[in-house]
Amino acid sequence: MSLASIDRERMLGRIRELGEVGRKDGRLTRLAGSDADRAGRDLLVSWLEGAGLEVKIDRIGNIFGIWTEVPIADEAPVLLGSHIDTVINAGIYDGCYGVIAGLEVIETLKRNGFAPSRPIAVAAFTNEEGVRYAPDMMGSLVHAGGLSVEAALASVGTDGSVLGEELSRIGYAGDVEPGFLRPKAYVELHVEQGPVLEREGLRIGAVETLQGISWQRVTISGVANHAGTTPMSMRSDAGQAAAEVMVFLRQRAMASNIPVVATIGCMAFEPNAINVIPSLASFTVDLRSPDEQRLREEEAALAAFLDALALRDGFGVSVERLARFQPVTFDPAILALVEQAAGRRGLSSRRMTSGAGHDAQMIARIAPSAMIFVPSRDGISHNPKEHTDADDLVAGADILLDVVRDLSA
Amino acid sequence: MSLASIDRERMLGRIRELGEVGRKDGRLTRLAGSDADRAGRDLLVSWLEGAGLEVKIDRIGNIFGIWTEVPIADEAPVLLGSHIDTVINAGIYDGCYGVIAGLEVIETLKRNGFAPSRPIAVAAFTNEEGVRYAPDMMGSLVHAGGLSVEAALASVGTDGSVLGEELSRIGYAGDVEPGFLRPKAYVELHVEQGPVLEREGLRIGAVETLQGISWQRVTISGVANHAGTTPMSMRSDAGQAAAEVMVFLRQRAMASNIPVVATIGCMAFEPNAINVIPSLASFTVDLRSPDEQRLREEEAALAAFLDALALRDGFGVSVERLARFQPVTFDPAILALVEQAAGRRGLSSRRMTSGAGHDAQMIARIAPSAMIFVPSRDGISHNPKEHTDADDLVAGADILLDVVRDLSA
Repeated sequence: MSLASIDRERMLGRIRELGEVGRKDGRLTRLAGSDADRAGRDLLVSWLEGAGLEVKIDRIGNIFGIWTEVPIADEAPVLLGSHIDTVINAGIYDGCYGVIAGLEVIETLKRNGFAPSRPIAVAAFTNEEGVRYAPDMMGSLVHAGGLSVEAALASVGTDGSVLGEELSRIGYAGDVEPGFLRPKAYVELHVEQGPVLEREGLRIGAVETLQGISWQRVTISGVANHAGTTPMSMRSDAGQAAAEVMVFLRQRAMASNIPVVATIGCMAFEPNAINVIPSLASFTVDLRSPDEQRLREEEAALAAFLDALALRDGFGVSVERLARFQPVTFDPAILALVEQAAGRRGLSSRRMTSGAGHDAQMIARIAPSAMIFVPSRDGISHNPKEHTDADDLVAGADILLDVVRDLSA
Repeated sequence: MSLASIDRERMLGRIRELGEVGRKDGRLTRLAGSDADRAGRDLLVSWLEGAGLEVKIDRIGNIFGIWTEVPIADEAPVLLGSHIDTVINAGIYDGCYGVIAGLEVIETLKRNGFAPSRPIAVAAFTNEEGVRYAPDMMGSLVHAGGLSVEAALASVGTDGSVLGEELSRIGYAGDVEPGFLRPKAYVELHVEQGPVLEREGLRIGAVETLQGISWQRVTISGVANHAGTTPMSMRSDAGQAAAEVMVFLRQRAMASNIPVVATIGCMAFEPNAINVIPSLASFTVDLRSPDEQRLREEEAALAAFLDALALRDGFGVSVERLARFQPVTFDPAILALVEQAAGRRGLSSRRMTSGAGHDAQMIARIAPSAMIFVPSRDGISHNPKEHTDADDLVAGADILLDVVRDLSA
């Protein structure tokens, strides 16, 4: 079969066009349920309808564009998708790329006279970013049955608004029951939002896992004392204990053969005075790994280290769990199709892990799923500087095209 | 010579009595130049006059009680002293003990018919604590010629008041020129304000050095990045760099054969978000040592470590010097007298370093000086919990008595 390609200019043009919707004073912001979100949805729906797709909106506002034909209407569809809501002062690729490329793939297949064995659909899931309403990845979570639509619609935003009311207001509180579409397979194309592909000079990531996340807050209490009169050997310095924990976690993560990342992002000392030994250090620990067993080992190692600190130096230690998600493993058969497609097109690729959360992790609960990554310049995302080269955007969409054709042949 | 002793009940009674002056709602506060300071000064002067001493007040408000006789009036005096101003919500010993014990020593010598070869004086120096007016140790610094009396009187307080006006208001802007009394020797008795004597079960500290102090603020800048998508090997984590610096400084200080203390008391991360790698860590470094050469080595080691961090990982590093004082070495001859006195009285003792600043470090600029420490329970000071056992207070005063007798025989 010849290596067809998507319509480069149409896809890039749509990404740029959608990237201007909700831009104000140069800043792009399309929070879920906002007027800017409505404008973005309206534009997307016009494209879906223009492509001859059947458009369905469910009760949580997820938008589906479905290509089906009478003989195959009862088959489980191949679903593509991502989201078009954004963070505040966003880039133009995160989410939008996957939705627009999904539409582009369907249009290309239609134009080329491809006869699918099952429907092919593209979805834009509501409130993936979770900036205005919690939780994030909400629309796909509701679709997968992990959250009731009533609970989701009742979510109160950071601005005091209620999501259900806002969806009604902007005309996207649909009447279709969430989860109506049970896919045969789900494939999400996304920018990496990390530096791995760029640093390694690779074009395509076959995302085989999505990291599990462990968030904890650790508070270590020692004894405040005079920085001048208290010898080193008589100190119970909570700040130094925190520093030991930081170095320990970093060294473990650096030395791990299974990918682990450890981040201490928040830190506070008390009394936080130049000449007083800290009596208290409070910090967050963000541990992530694609391997659940390894994540548990890291958590256990932290707990043991804290216990040893308490025993050795008499520190008080308390740990609060803030969040915990198990890793997601994507479907090996779809990943094999991604790698085969990259090989046929002469595009370098690697298996990799997603460090960030995506709608795919929710849909993976109900269907074989996978993700395809393309490089992000400098690994930057959630930022106006977010950038992926046009050639990489086209390459990713072409791989998606090939995979969808294979899945629906 | 028999081992005379000071009047235990009189001295302890005076410490308690002065400790009630300026107490309000249970909290003791006698800031320099305040009404409470006046009341404390009035009480002290009444005791000095009651002991038959000549009272002199200099222009910065330092109070001197001088025991002299016609034949010895031209000899350089032995000077004892400390301060009677306090911090906010203070204990009753810091400073007051040295002044009251100094008076007690003079009264005891007089009562015992001792005929000194030179005058003996006790001083209460103005504004040692520096809580209301900067700098601290002001009265002794002016006495030693390190600060002009005009500059000191012009100091504006944290409450907007001017020290010179406040001293006039409370009647303690004297007319004697500061520095009028040039001592043969200066001895200051003080509570340790640290845990060393108590932990080692010792009664008397012969203070041979007063630590030098180096205060710096270090700011390390790295790159903020996504905590999930950025592999450990691709991070420029300013928080982790700060932790490395902390552990490095602590290990050096712990391993040093010359006493060094290193304290990181203040710490701030930016952006200080749980899922963002810190782009910036800003912290204070408080280094102290009685050995100037060693203090310089520690400063150099920190600078070299920061340079290496910058070179290895591309961190930006900036260092701001906040304060720097050289160590003070006290007079070996006076220290020998302290140790001999302790030995004669069967009191255990050790040579030690003062971690805090004292008037003695200023007077050491113009005369052979030394300090005597007695234990502080749990090392606590600048706090209502400040406590020294009565037996230790008496023991310290008796050692002061012996040393003064030796210096003025």
